[in-house]
Amino acid sequence: MKLTFQDLEDLARGAAFLGTGGGDPYCGRLMVEQAMKEGCTVEIIDLDEVPDDALIIPTAMMGAPTVLVEKLPRGDEAILSLRRLEEHLGRQAFATMPIECGGINSTIPLVVGARLGLPVVDADGMGRAFPELQMETFHIYGVPGTPMAITNEYGDTALVTTHDNYMMEWLARGITIRMGGAAYIAEYAMDGRTAKRTAVPRTLTLGLTIGRGIRLARHQHRDPFQSLIELLKTTPYKVGAVIFEGKVVDVLRQTTEGFAKGQAVIESTADHHEQMELTFQNEHLVARVRREVKAIVPDLICVLDAETAEPITTEAIKYGQRVKVMAVSVPEIMRTPEALAVFGPKAFGLDGEFRPIETLV
Amino acid sequence: MKLTFQDLEDLARGAAFLGTGGGDPYCGRLMVEQAMKEGCTVEIIDLDEVPDDALIIPTAMMGAPTVLVEKLPRGDEAILSLRRLEEHLGRQAFATMPIECGGINSTIPLVVGARLGLPVVDADGMGRAFPELQMETFHIYGVPGTPMAITNEYGDTALVTTHDNYMMEWLARGITIRMGGAAYIAEYAMDGRTAKRTAVPRTLTLGLTIGRGIRLARHQHRDPFQSLIELLKTTPYKVGAVIFEGKVVDVLRQTTEGFAKGQAVIESTADHHEQMELTFQNEHLVARVRREVKAIVPDLICVLDAETAEPITTEAIKYGQRVKVMAVSVPEIMRTPEALAVFGPKAFGLDGEFRPIETLV
Repeated sequence: MKLTFQDLEDLARGAAFLGTGGGDPYCGRLMVEQAMKEGCTVEIIDLDEVPDDALIIPTAMMGAPTVLVEKLPRGDEAILSLRRLEEHLGRQAFATMPIECGGINSTIPLVVGARLGLPVVDADGMGRAFPELQMETFHIYGVPGTPMAITNEYGDTALVTTHDNYMMEWLARGITIRMGGAAYIAEYAMDGRTAKRTAVPRTLTLGLTIGRGIRLARHQHRDPFQSLIELLKTTPYKVGAVIFEGKVVDVLRQTTEGFAKGQAVIESTADHHEQMELTFQNEHLVARVRREVKAIVPDLICVLDAETAEPITTEAIKYGQRVKVMAVSVPEIMRTPEALAVFGPKAFGLDGEFRPIETLV
Repeated sequence: MKLTFQDLEDLARGAAFLGTGGGDPYCGRLMVEQAMKEGCTVEIIDLDEVPDDALIIPTAMMGAPTVLVEKLPRGDEAILSLRRLEEHLGRQAFATMPIECGGINSTIPLVVGARLGLPVVDADGMGRAFPELQMETFHIYGVPGTPMAITNEYGDTALVTTHDNYMMEWLARGITIRMGGAAYIAEYAMDGRTAKRTAVPRTLTLGLTIGRGIRLARHQHRDPFQSLIELLKTTPYKVGAVIFEGKVVDVLRQTTEGFAKGQAVIESTADHHEQMELTFQNEHLVARVRREVKAIVPDLICVLDAETAEPITTEAIKYGQRVKVMAVSVPEIMRTPEALAVFGPKAFGLDGEFRPIETLV
């Protein structure tokens, strides 16, 4: 499948939805558009089309989305990381792939694919967005994340090899911070066979479908929220529900430890004594009303413009925005004990067990 | 020249002197001793013995000496860094070399040389010890520090390539911090021709000579300070002078930003109203009495036990120690405008110009 300009716009919107707050795809979208305008094409392929022994090198941005707003990429950082890793491995990549289908990292591999003429595999390692590198199905199912390469806008690179994927995150995060809080990586190099076993399939087309659904609903004057809920029923992310509606009345946001961390408070439209508090680390982690959990990782917590259902990211959320908060169930594979150990509430230092959104609404 | 156990002891003492406070060679000395007891030999060679096209890979510890006191190396970290860099360069090292002849980094290349059967070049890139990687004659005379490798006790490595040597220091420091504050590096890989042009020659034998001089003076019941001053006259470090004598009455020391930073206050033996304040970043940077500079980088500021002239490092200096402070002139090549720009007072954020110790005593 070749991506059109309309697809790209839809995909970016859907990816912002699946990003559950983390990292606006806008900047990445512009880079892909520029490449397409210059004649490059973006070819999306299914996992089934990847030969078992072909090398896939996923690419991504790493760091705080708050930084990306001010420190724009030069454009070839992720490409340099991929090339650096190819050089180290002594093999050329057959394709690139997202590590996360949500947020900006849905678009970075498209830039790499367009510029290098590599297909982009329609799959990812998160099925949404998460803030840390070990929070990937690749990791959960035993793929070593390193050797990994990390590059900044000066072309400075580090090729990191670690004894486990937590140490990869720890070192790469430290390097990202010293690179100014945003850097570009190539990691979890794997063969087609491994990708088929460990990746979440068809998440680029999922993002595209969601983004298109929102657009069409607007265009046809249907309620985009109701349309989204109907649409989600046809995907592995079955259950979607609007869990709060109101106005953003407070945001505490810090760029710290290589992340955008903070809280946002939304005052209910129906009852101004009622408030929802969202806690985020790049992505939204938990939504609480009167300290009671209304949705929690790994289920999606999506803050959307109350009128248009346009996703609002954690670096862009601000006082006065009228929003609806949607929670969405993730596929069962992301709720296993093994998965929850890696990206469930405890992995983020949150109290309490994971509670599926179906039991909370 | 093959190093004997007595040589090693003398070299470690002399290196602690040239270390001007930074990093006790004790731990490295034990590692060399262990290797020698197991039958390894340490071969020191002159720069002249290195073929012009032979590859030299210097090795070192990086980080805060305060950390090294508690986090001992496994022993093969610097070896792994050298191997990692060899692998990247696709060439084997002919020899290793110190990047600094002072402190623990006089001994780390001896461990590497002993274990790998590589000769150790009798030269270094500082002519003393400095806390940062760009503070080297190699850098001043145009040698790229990267690609460089950095390794911790788990065998985790990063291979770093940067557009300049300041960025190398910045990224490698960040990695070192994330590796727990102490790590082991291989950097400034160069050929024999380049080493002959840019290294400070015969600084391992200088350390050995100084350490031996202190030992012999003690043994022969001569004043070790006077002996040192006489001995220095025969070296490129011509002028040595005791600039203060007293008791350590205060130490403020923090392990911060990957360094041991702080101040030590010494109360004069002759007049308890008179105090010298030493400011350090791993190494002593400036010695002041009533805010007046008495010695300043790059000249050596050495705190020595008042009786035995045993060097006291900045991580070990503590209340109650009776000490003499010696200042020593460095060779003219380390006082050029180019050199001072890299490791003179301003490079450390200190006010005022460099003032040679000869003009201050």
